[in-house]
Parts: sequence; structure tokens; C-alpha cells
Amino acid sequence: MIQKLTAHININVPFLKDKKLLIAISGGLDSVVLHHLLATLNFDISLAHCNFNLRGKESDLDEEFVNNLSQKTSNQIFIKSFNTEKYSKDNKLSTQIAARELRYTWFQELVEKHKFDYILTAHHADDNLETFLINLTRGTGLEGFTGIPKINGNIVRPLLPFSREEILKYAKENKIEWREDASNASTKYTRNKLRHQVIPVLKEINPSLLSSFEKTLENLQESQQILEDRIEEVSSEIIETKEAITKINIDKIQQLSNPKAYLYQLLKNHSFTEWNDVYDLLSAQSGKQVFSKTHRLLKDRDFLILSRKTDVNLDKVERSFNINKDELEIKNPIHLTFETVKQISTENKQTIYVDKDLLKYPLLVRKWQNGEYLYPTKMQGKKKLSKFFKDDKFSVLEKENTWLLCNADNEIIWVINHRQDRRFSTTSSTRKTLKITTL
Amino acid sequence: MIQKLTAHININVPFLKDKKLLIAISGGLDSVVLHHLLATLNFDISLAHCNFNLRGKESDLDEEFVNNLSQKTSNQIFIKSFNTEKYSKDNKLSTQIAARELRYTWFQELVEKHKFDYILTAHHADDNLETFLINLTRGTGLEGFTGIPKINGNIVRPLLPFSREEILKYAKENKIEWREDASNASTKYTRNKLRHQVIPVLKEINPSLLSSFEKTLENLQESQQILEDRIEEVSSEIIETKEAITKINIDKIQQLSNPKAYLYQLLKNHSFTEWNDVYDLLSAQSGKQVFSKTHRLLKDRDFLILSRKTDVNLDKVERSFNINKDELEIKNPIHLTFETVKQISTENKQTIYVDKDLLKYPLLVRKWQNGEYLYPTKMQGKKKLSKFFKDDKFSVLEKENTWLLCNADNEIIWVINHRQDRRFSTTSSTRKTLKITTL
Repeated sequence: MIQKLTAHININVPFLKDKKLLIAISGGLDSVVLHHLLATLNFDISLAHCNFNLRGKESDLDEEFVNNLSQKTSNQIFIKSFNTEKYSKDNKLSTQIAARELRYTWFQELVEKHKFDYILTAHHADDNLETFLINLTRGTGLEGFTGIPKINGNIVRPLLPFSREEILKYAKENKIEWREDASNASTKYTRNKLRHQVIPVLKEINPSLLSSFEKTLENLQESQQILEDRIEEVSSEIIETKEAITKINIDKIQQLSNPKAYLYQLLKNHSFTEWNDVYDLLSAQSGKQVFSKTHRLLKDRDFLILSRKTDVNLDKVERSFNINKDELEIKNPIHLTFETVKQISTENKQTIYVDKDLLKYPLLVRKWQNGEYLYPTKMQGKKKLSKFFKDDKFSVLEKENTWLLCNADNEIIWVINHRQDRRFSTTSSTRKTLKITTL
Repeated sequence: MIQKLTAHININVPFLKDKKLLIAISGGLDSVVLHHLLATLNFDISLAHCNFNLRGKESDLDEEFVNNLSQKTSNQIFIKSFNTEKYSKDNKLSTQIAARELRYTWFQELVEKHKFDYILTAHHADDNLETFLINLTRGTGLEGFTGIPKINGNIVRPLLPFSREEILKYAKENKIEWREDASNASTKYTRNKLRHQVIPVLKEINPSLLSSFEKTLENLQESQQILEDRIEEVSSEIIETKEAITKINIDKIQQLSNPKAYLYQLLKNHSFTEWNDVYDLLSAQSGKQVFSKTHRLLKDRDFLILSRKTDVNLDKVERSFNINKDELEIKNPIHLTFETVKQISTENKQTIYVDKDLLKYPLLVRKWQNGEYLYPTKMQGKKKLSKFFKDDKFSVLEKENTWLLCNADNEIIWVINHRQDRRFSTTSSTRKTLKITTL
């Protein structure tokens, strides 16, 4: 095994030599063997052990075990104890995901602080096959079938070409001791079923299963890469990104061979689950929207508009912002200045002039509501705000982002940046003119 | 099940209604149930049964069984008996592949002759999962994981959303009789292992395995489609096809994210097996080549050149073509005319003039050999033909396609279309001038 590993390192990860390496060590068979192999090959290694405190005393015995191991081999060791259950509750994560986040965050901290070049983990070929089969039973896509990457940023997995059997054989031949792996109980149930009942039958069918599986993974990774090339290219043609807003051109996506498939690929990293609702947006009315845990996708005329939920004003009836009589300027939710002037100078969309005596304080800045009316300048009669928006071809986003300036009775003074209400305009009898400007 | 099938047909294959359908019926559970379902739903069906004669008396009993079935239900039936073993031997095919070829060829003949609209087969969800797992054990790529298509040309598989269990339940409830499926023994071994030992465990892990698997297949099919879109696009940029020759631009393929992955996709339908040799061609010397069962891939300067083996002159030392003294024209292997002339008119690459008295008949037309020398006109001394080709920047293909005209002693008279040998040129003492022209 030493020879095979040396050859594998020389061919596939030669850059590990003479580098500062940090081995993630649980105390289980795989990581202990990885440590033994690299120590035997005289690599520059340190150890990092996470005590997740998920199995009571057993967790502490694991910690003690790896601590002793590091003393025997004189390798530097880092140990950290985590309150995994609290972290998983606080962040609404499964224990397994919580442990993974804690682990990798800490490893990267160690890398930064102690200038490690690479983090090594002991994943092997059987892990890859088990993960493949777990994803198969759950239902997945191509991304669930491409395996654990050999190299991912600064994380390297040198044992991926090896089977559990080879690792076990090496451990026995070298009289290596280890502790049983700690792992999430429900995953363990599934993994054990696959490990003991499914994979042995597959290996009966094809005794060189793992090596043909390795080739299969490579093929799928290559297909995934080609697919990503295509998505990158299509993105550049049909997506416009501006600040936190991503606009997908519906017309262009409809011209592709399989619009839904492309839409899935474009949005798959934004936590959507109701894909049929997402696909329906392509032909829905403007204003329809679908939410994921983190994002909103909004149909707006010719575009699907993706934005983070935090950037979206979900509630049309939000709180009002008060403006008192003596305030000369407000900055939130929108920047307004108030100035009493002698005469009216240039008017533009950013500036209005009102008869100050007609106002009732406190003025309010707020969002619009359905059913509200405006008495627009340069027009007789009143007009529904929704009709005004429609006639002026406001997009759904523009409507959402529009603020109203109102008086204390909630009458509209100004659709800010768009249209003044004539009820408060200056007239020939105006005595005090107030100039209001947005910046 | 009738309801579920009706709904499935209405949604996914509504075009089957009022069409002339041909059901492929083996006599096994699946096809007998498909027949029963469609007969119950009053579809316009006929039956087609292949007797592959692979299981002696059992095969004949199958035939008798479906024949009786058709009489009971008054459906038209077509039955054909095949010598499958002979066909598989003659065509060097596995029994399974041979049976498939015979079956589908015959079905399409029936479709043509009797104007059927669609051929229906009884593949179901478990078949799909078994095939997926068989491909997994053998090693495969994305194309091995996309499942049996619901619709493929005029072949439709209406039972694909159903599990074997549902089909069996329907058969029992309706007291349907069937015969055990005939199938290839070695595949049966593998399928049985998967069916009885692997799939039940996967179903324990996820009881709704088949429906999540259906979704997985859809995802993979969509990924496959996106990948094909990309390959189609890349092909149009880096491939030139001219008659039977396909030229792949090496420089352009090297600029892609993963040249080997693209090369695999471009060539995967041409029976190559030694993929590492294929990939090595990208950086190999001009003239290197790799053969598949059907094709040759040749490195030629800036291109990889793909051609069918039958179009390639594999043997450089091929037979010579004789030309007798009295022949005025030959057409094979190249068109040449011979004419005795009084004087030399315009010379060009397609025409030479030689001193007829210097020739020894029969002349020969043949390919060149390594080590041959030319005594070129307009030059002193001799020159190796290989050097001449190199200096004149012949591509490998051009060298292969070049013919020599020689005299009976095998001395070169003319590198046809390229360079005359001065040993046979006309001189001031020439009495008979022979004009030789290619067309």
C-alpha cells in the first residue's frame, strides 16, 4: 500500500511534498491509517481533532486516543471541543451538517493561523460509492453522482483511490490500533445497510467494482464540467446582474432546447424546492413570485428577477416614517430635504413645491396600498395609484420600491420621484412655499 | 392501475389514442399485463411475438401461449421464428444483442407493411433501476444513467412509471396468466441478484425509491440534454466535415476547459476503446494514429482526422496497376491519359511530357514506399521521397493519397500531380514525346 500511495501522490498530488500538512483525525480506522502512512513517508504533518461531544464518554476517549497517538509519533496536535447540539439547534441544522460546518470552519482557522498548506482527510473509494448510493436512494441529479473531489481548494483526499479493504489490511499488517468512527446515527443506519448488504452483492457481480466505479465518477465529473461550461455560456447570454438583482431573460431561455432544465441549473444554488412553481413562472402573469428559504424569484414582464429575501420588501404595508414640522432633512427610508423658499425655481422629478399651510404634520413616508387614489397634477379628477403605475409601465420591482410622501391624514402629497398630488400644490394664494427634494 | 395508466397516457402520451398500436409481447408478466390493460381500455392493438428459439420447447410453448391469448381477445397477431444463435455467430454479437437487433428490425418491417403508428413495449420502473445498477457495476458514463426513454422514435413504453409490484398486483387481481420471461442467462444472473438482493435493501432505505428514482432519471436526462447542446455548439466551432473526413482542430480543443472530456464526447460513437491512446494523439507527432473497430483517428499537424476504416488505405504497399503500351487512358486507381505529341505545349502540375523511348512497359501506378528516391526535374542529384514530401509540407493524408507513375523497373516517372522525375524527361534528342495528363 505504501508503494501504491507513493505512486498515487507522485502522479496526482505531487505538490504535497515538502508542504505543511494538517491531517483531520477522528481516531477511526481511515484517519489513523492515513496518519501512519504519511508519517512513514516522512511528510511534514500535524493533526487536528474535533471533539463534537455527541457520544458522551466515547467522544472523550476518542480525544484521549488521538492525543496519545500524537505523543507517540511526536506530531503536533490541535484539539477543539464543540457544543455541536447547541450549534445545530441555534442554526437549525442537522447534527451532521452542523458538525461539518464546525469542523471545516475550525480547520480553515488553523490553516490561517499556523500557515498550513493543505488539509488532508481520509475519505476512500468505499465512502464515495456509499455516498453515491445514498444519493441514489434519496433521489438526486448529476451533482449527486460526481463523488467527493480528490482536491477541493486546500482540502486533499489522498486515500480516495483505496478501498476500505486495503486500508483495513494495511492496519492489520502494521498492527495499527484505532477507535470505531463516530458518526451520525441515522446516516450510520443507511451506510451500514449499503456497506454490508448492498455493496458486497455489487462486488460479487463485478469483483473490480471500485476501479470501474472510479472511472465512472471521472466520466460523470467530465460530463458535469461540460454542462457547467454550457451553463456559464448561457448565463452570459441570458442573465443580467446588477447589484443584488439578477434578471433572467424569459424570451431567450424559452428558445433553448429545454428551458426548464436550464432554469433549474441557473437557480439550483438558491435553495428552491418547489420547482414546478418555479417553472410555471415562465408563463405566469407579471407579479407572480416564488420564494425559497433564501431567495425570491419574481415574474416581471420579460424577466424572472432573482433577489435575496433580505433585499425584498415583503410587506407592502410597512411601517411609516414620521417627519416633524421642524425637520429639514431625513435619510431613512429615503433621503429628503425640506426648505422654505421665496420662489419656485426649476422643477424636476426630484423636486416638488408645496403649499406649506395645507400640510398636516407629522408627514409620513410609506409604501402604497391597493385601492389608494392620487390627484395628479396636470390632470383633472383622481386616478387609482395602481392604474397610474400601469399606465406609466412600472415594473413590479419599481412599484415595490416606490415611496409615498403623505400628510398626517394619509393623503398623498407626492409619489416620490414620479408625480406630485395637486391637492398640495402651490397656487396664486400660497403664502409659504416648501421645496422638497430627494437626493 | 387502470386509472393511473389512463392518467399517465392522457398527460404523457395522449397521441396514442385512436392510433394503430403494435404491442411487443413475449408472454411474460409485463407484456401480458400491458396487453390486458390496453385491451380493457379499447385501444386499437395488434400483437407481435418473436420466437428466438433459445430455450427449446419452452420457446414454442411461449409462442403457443400468446397465440391462444390473441385468439381469446380477437387481436391480430404476428409471429416470427428466428435462428438467433446463427445470427449471433454470423454477426459476432452476443445472443442478447442479436435478439434485440432481430426483434426491432422485424417490428419496423411490420410497422411499414401494416401501417402501425407506434410499437409498445412493456418496460417498467424496475427494469430502469436494474439497468441503471447493471451499468453502475460495469462502469459507465452519464449516458448509462439516463434510463430507457419513454418515447424513442415510434417506440413507446407506457408502463415505465409502474413498478413490477404494481404490475404483479394487477395481474393477480385480474386473474391474468403469464409465462416466465425468457432472457439471456448471464444477464438473468445479474438481474436476479439485483432484483432479489440489492433493490429490496434500497427500498427498505427509501420506501418511495422508484418515484425518487424517476425524478433522478429526469434530472440526468436534462443534464444529458444540456451537455449535448454544448457538444453540438463546440462541434460547429472546432470540427470541419468534408465528405467522409472529419477534422478536429487541435488548437481549439486545447483551449476548452477539459480537452479530453470534449474529445471523448466528440468521438464516443465511433467505437474507440483505447481512450488514453486517443488523448495522447493531441500532443503526438504527425502521422500517429489510433484505430477503433470502425474508424481511424490520425494526428496530422494541427488536426485530428477521423475517417472510416474502409476509406483509409491502410497498406502503403498496395497492389500496382499496370498500363500497357497501347493504352490511351486508365481510370483506376487514378484517371490518366496518354498521347503521343509532336511538340510540348503548356506544362502544368496535371501534365508531363516524357521521352517515350526511355520507358519500359508495362508502366505501373502504385503508392510510394519508404526509402524510395526521386530525381526531380529542375534539380541536381536525387532526393528521398519522404524528404520531398516533408519539404513540400505534405499532410499525412496527402502523402497517403499520392500515386506514383513508374516504369516496369519501378523507377519513378512522375509523382502524379506533384513532380516529374528528370530521368524520363524529354531532351533535345527525344524522337517520340508522350504527353501524360491526369483529369
